[in-house]
Amino acid sequence: MVTRTIDLRSDTVTKPTETMRLAMAKAEVDDDVLIYDPTARHLETEMARITGKEAALFVPSGTMGNLISVLVHCEIRGSEVILGNNSHIHIYENGGISTIGGVHPRPVKNNEDGTMDINLIESAIRNPDFEICYPKTRLICLENSHANSGGRVLSVDYTDQVGELAKKHNLKLHIDGARIFNASVALGVPVHRLVQAADSVSVCLSKGLGAPVGSVIVGTKSFIDRARILRKTLGGGMRQVGILCAAALVALQENVGKLGNDHKNAKTLAEGLNKIKGLKADVASVETNIVYFEILEGSNITALKLGKIMEEHGILLMPDSSSRVRIVIHHQVSASDVQYTLSCIKQAMTGVENGGN
Amino acid sequence: MVTRTIDLRSDTVTKPTETMRLAMAKAEVDDDVLIYDPTARHLETEMARITGKEAALFVPSGTMGNLISVLVHCEIRGSEVILGNNSHIHIYENGGISTIGGVHPRPVKNNEDGTMDINLIESAIRNPDFEICYPKTRLICLENSHANSGGRVLSVDYTDQVGELAKKHNLKLHIDGARIFNASVALGVPVHRLVQAADSVSVCLSKGLGAPVGSVIVGTKSFIDRARILRKTLGGGMRQVGILCAAALVALQENVGKLGNDHKNAKTLAEGLNKIKGLKADVASVETNIVYFEILEGSNITALKLGKIMEEHGILLMPDSSSRVRIVIHHQVSASDVQYTLSCIKQAMTGVENGGN
Amino acid sequence: MVTRTIDLRSDTVTKPTETMRLAMAKAEVDDDVLIYDPTARHLETEMARITGKEAALFVPSGTMGNLISVLVHCEIRGSEVILGNNSHIHIYENGGISTIGGVHPRPVKNNEDGTMDINLIESAIRNPDFEICYPKTRLICLENSHANSGGRVLSVDYTDQVGELAKKHNLKLHIDGARIFNASVALGVPVHRLVQAADSVSVCLSKGLGAPVGSVIVGTKSFIDRARILRKTLGGGMRQVGILCAAALVALQENVGKLGNDHKNAKTLAEGLNKIKGLKADVASVETNIVYFEILEGSNITALKLGKIMEEHGILLMPDSSSRVRIVIHHQVSASDVQYTLSCIKQAMTGVENGGN
Amino acid sequence: MVTRTIDLRSDTVTKPTETMRLAMAKAEVDDDVLIYDPTARHLETEMARITGKEAALFVPSGTMGNLISVLVHCEIRGSEVILGNNSHIHIYENGGISTIGGVHPRPVKNNEDGTMDINLIESAIRNPDFEICYPKTRLICLENSHANSGGRVLSVDYTDQVGELAKKHNLKLHIDGARIFNASVALGVPVHRLVQAADSVSVCLSKGLGAPVGSVIVGTKSFIDRARILRKTLGGGMRQVGILCAAALVALQENVGKLGNDHKNAKTLAEGLNKIKGLKADVASVETNIVYFEILEGSNITALKLGKIMEEHGILLMPDSSSRVRIVIHHQVSASDVQYTLSCIKQAMTGVENGGN
Repeated sequence: MVTRTIDLRSDTVTKPTETMRLAMAKAEVDDDVLIYDPTARHLETEMARITGKEAALFVPSGTMGNLISVLVHCEIRGSEVILGNNSHIHIYENGGISTIGGVHPRPVKNNEDGTMDINLIESAIRNPDFEICYPKTRLICLENSHANSGGRVLSVDYTDQVGELAKKHNLKLHIDGARIFNASVALGVPVHRLVQAADSVSVCLSKGLGAPVGSVIVGTKSFIDRARILRKTLGGGMRQVGILCAAALVALQENVGKLGNDHKNAKTLAEGLNKIKGLKADVASVETNIVYFEILEGSNITALKLGKIMEEHGILLMPDSSSRVRIVIHHQVSASDVQYTLSCIKQAMTGVENGGN
Repeated sequence: MVTRTIDLRSDTVTKPTETMRLAMAKAEVDDDVLIYDPTARHLETEMARITGKEAALFVPSGTMGNLISVLVHCEIRGSEVILGNNSHIHIYENGGISTIGGVHPRPVKNNEDGTMDINLIESAIRNPDFEICYPKTRLICLENSHANSGGRVLSVDYTDQVGELAKKHNLKLHIDGARIFNASVALGVPVHRLVQAADSVSVCLSKGLGAPVGSVIVGTKSFIDRARILRKTLGGGMRQVGILCAAALVALQENVGKLGNDHKNAKTLAEGLNKIKGLKADVASVETNIVYFEILEGSNITALKLGKIMEEHGILLMPDSSSRVRIVIHHQVSASDVQYTLSCIKQAMTGVENGGN
Repeated sequence: MVTRTIDLRSDTVTKPTETMRLAMAKAEVDDDVLIYDPTARHLETEMARITGKEAALFVPSGTMGNLISVLVHCEIRGSEVILGNNSHIHIYENGGISTIGGVHPRPVKNNEDGTMDINLIESAIRNPDFEICYPKTRLICLENSHANSGGRVLSVDYTDQVGELAKKHNLKLHIDGARIFNASVALGVPVHRLVQAADSVSVCLSKGLGAPVGSVIVGTKSFIDRARILRKTLGGGMRQVGILCAAALVALQENVGKLGNDHKNAKTLAEGLNKIKGLKADVASVETNIVYFEILEGSNITALKLGKIMEEHGILLMPDSSSRVRIVIHHQVSASDVQYTLSCIKQAMTGVENGGN
Repeated sequence: MVTRTIDLRSDTVTKPTETMRLAMAKAEVDDDVLIYDPTARHLETEMARITGKEAALFVPSGTMGNLISVLVHCEIRGSEVILGNNSHIHIYENGGISTIGGVHPRPVKNNEDGTMDINLIESAIRNPDFEICYPKTRLICLENSHANSGGRVLSVDYTDQVGELAKKHNLKLHIDGARIFNASVALGVPVHRLVQAADSVSVCLSKGLGAPVGSVIVGTKSFIDRARILRKTLGGGMRQVGILCAAALVALQENVGKLGNDHKNAKTLAEGLNKIKGLKADVASVETNIVYFEILEGSNITALKLGKIMEEHGILLMPDSSSRVRIVIHHQVSASDVQYTLSCIKQAMTGVENGGN
């Protein structure tokens, strides 16, 4: 009988802690569309401080955070944004920057570590002398940590270089920092330093930080003023949102300190998976809380099948393809959970090998 | 010394009740983007039942509810929507249906009671024989109760007639039902009957119902499936949103029954205002919880000034123009609050008359 | 046997004259996308001079001229344009400003003479203090002459007043001057004076002027620079377009002088129609080259039927509704054609009356 | 003294021939927005026949042809198109499919020969099971010949394979056939066979074919019906457009037969350039009428400088970068022009080598 679920599908699946629930129950709130909610103000001030930016805005999701940021930087018709061809914005956000925002993406190849070559970025910037047939490049987007590359982190040095390139060409730099705290912890660099070169950052509160709902975008006061209007247009203006912000404030206090542990658990998991016959995990690439592993050819099992077997053991996985699985560690996954998971996966792989399934 | 605020600016300003806070603290939640949150499912099922529609979807705001509804009905480029020239969608939602959705509005004159003449609606429907220069009419929007006309309600009969017109021309009908519960109570008609002719309805949980955040849209299962995708595109997909839905479920239980009282308080307020020298309120038009009053010429006071004086008494008003004020009653305004408000306004108006200000 | 067609459906139906054809055959041309076509340059310079603006741009159609103009003035997402609810842009251009450009229209009631009340325009301008829920008003559009009001003209004084209002609120003013030459001739005011208050004007070459294809937009050099880019985006950049521009230059020389005659013919036609039993034309409102007439109730004939009868006589009409017909006079309709048309219509109406049809 | 210009910047720069001018002067025309122009009908029928499609539509430019095609296939909000990362649509059309049409591009790497690997195309097709965060793939675009790869041609076999892939996934296939006649001639395959797998093709009349203005799009009757409406929306509906179509009909008769000669001249030019010290042209890749050549490092001359020297000799070139030049051959460039050009370039390169410039 399964008595507990170990949910490894994403770090978005965490449940609010008791302290968060208490904070929500007691939160002081007001109408935030009218900019009166004190708890939202508190959270925004705190996030601006942590990221070293002038101002901040709570939004319902990371997708909206990125969408608003791109659209504010590209508010003039005919704008183009340079972003990774494997970035979350390009791949997983419904193409909203185009389909809702009319912004033209110019994807640049993402390296395995989540970076784009600086010279490739530069060559993707449109020559303004040919504006008769070119959209106007206005923005570069980075993603740190970079989800599709397995949570790899972009260094301060790399980020600064891209920032200098952006400045040289009079472009803006946005960082999709859904997991910027993971990157910060992995690099041992404070968030504000890591995003120093950015004009805007979107930071997710409901991934590794474990808050139930929301993201925050940060930037200049003028950027945030325009972002607030666009949030209303998109329907992201919420009323007594202090409820959610109260939980996020607890998340900042409680959970940032646990991210290092998540990373350690992810590493352990990757190492363990790599030792299981029929599986392969690139241990070296596990820099934060995401682990990808491959089911080797000849293993007689698909990712989907493995997922189903694990589900019987109370473990939830997300197949990424027929032979690839993504696991994301968060504060509600313990070291014991990792060991239990490894044990169950090993058993399943052995069973398959023995024709048991 | 002011010890308590009577907030009459809107019914969006209510604070969550203790039962709501308790419900939020105890809510069972899961990742709603992955459609796993049980409390969200519960709320959506409940709202579908109440409105008599197949399916429902929680969204962060009424603006998003309307935006998604219009965009789903008008998902093909070149669509036009017929809506009131004084409707919330046309006036107060940033023009999002065009600026975000590329839908062309064809406004039709709103009468004082919030209706549009049926023959005017019909004549605004584009003749498909001239499609070479006409956008294609796909949708009619009604608003019930109608905010800008002072919360006037649209009857079942009128709504049904518009629904028949829509069907005849193969159009969809959306009802902006931000305050549909108010309309239902005022008319003594169940919500499901009132919106029977509609293909979709957006219902606000954080206005008269007093939930902290959110709206729900309802329609066919197919409509909601597409709405869910668009909600994600816009960034309105939230994670452990059951927190907010738990409060909304309480709101449905606790506060629908109080709306009749709100309407009574609004009527009393209007009658009282109308008796104050220098003011004029159209008592007959107060059908729900909204009261507009005019400051008559020669009264030596502006709406802004009156608002400031009231603020000193702990009463918050929202000036609509220099000589017009809007008041909205909600469950956190008592009959005593109404009397206190009338007394303070009378005093202020008398003071002005006597040159006291 | 019909030997000649009198085409009264529109002034867009004129055939190029022999001089135009000769000019096209001899036109000096080059690649105009590369801004090298000398005949296009010549036409644009001439149109800038005539309209008193800095610069001009040839575009394939009046629809594109208006679309580009609105989009350049409203190049920032979230823009709103105030325009007549009976204007060509709002009614006959596929809603392109929204469906292609994402601009939100705020229609204001057109009076019978094609004007909008100045105070209604002013009250439609959004208060920037409520920008959280308002799109931003950026543009006012006028139409002179005003097609849907029967070619009525807007006076210099009215245009100047709207221009002042626009300036006061920091808005732009665009004039849809598809038939601005007709307005100029009717008012006896040079075009440049008539559009003095406008930031941009689109002028059609292929309506009353009789050129085969094209419109020109005029404005500041900076406006035209941005318009040229947008023309390319829309696909309106053409190569050896001097062919068409050569015809337009002839049109300017040959046909502007004939517009007064068109107006006289239109007046004569209206007067004649008004005398035919069963018809009604508002003679006083015929200020330029457009005539609307009504088929009175009890006449036993529809507009469609009348059109079919006329077709047998070689006369082409365009029914506007079941009981309303629009006629547009142009330089290829003579005074004799008008008399012939009146005679045929009279005969048809008498036939109907006698039960002949 | 320069007495004649050899314009090698593009094949868009050709001047209309005397027969074209004569045809334009005599063209039978009517209002094409009302679909009455007989010469436009004639051209469209002819192009439908040549391409083996049901119907055709004349449009002002190749950019509009591609824009309309993509937008008709992607008429539902949330669409994604797979296209080459080096394709004309992605690089040179202002990003219009996004900035005007709200379509999200998913670029796939173009190989040097203008193809995209079939498996890369397939892996770029979105899995409909994840539609909650994915736009919906609706269209694949090919370009034949492929301009940015130097006019390389896509084979029938390759095109058919992509067509089968599209069918398998229920996608549409559009071919940007701006220079499809060049590809057809180079491959010795009739146009209709080459585009057999395509749902739509845009064909340019004013590139190699030498007509002054215009492109034609072809597809099913239903596709063209919708394309005509969109052409009007964009402002591409023109009145007596038969003028331009008459020239295009001549172009089809006169110039298709000359394309083989253009290709021969291009090859000769490439071979000659490759023999000049300091230059490098990839002769093998010259399959049609486009030649790219590199100025080798150490040559002491930039492409811009070389262009300026050539201009003194009456030869117009288009620098592609500081060390790369693009030449396009057309029917108004003779074999002698090629020899003269080679001679002038050789002289310039020798002069530079000797420090003469």
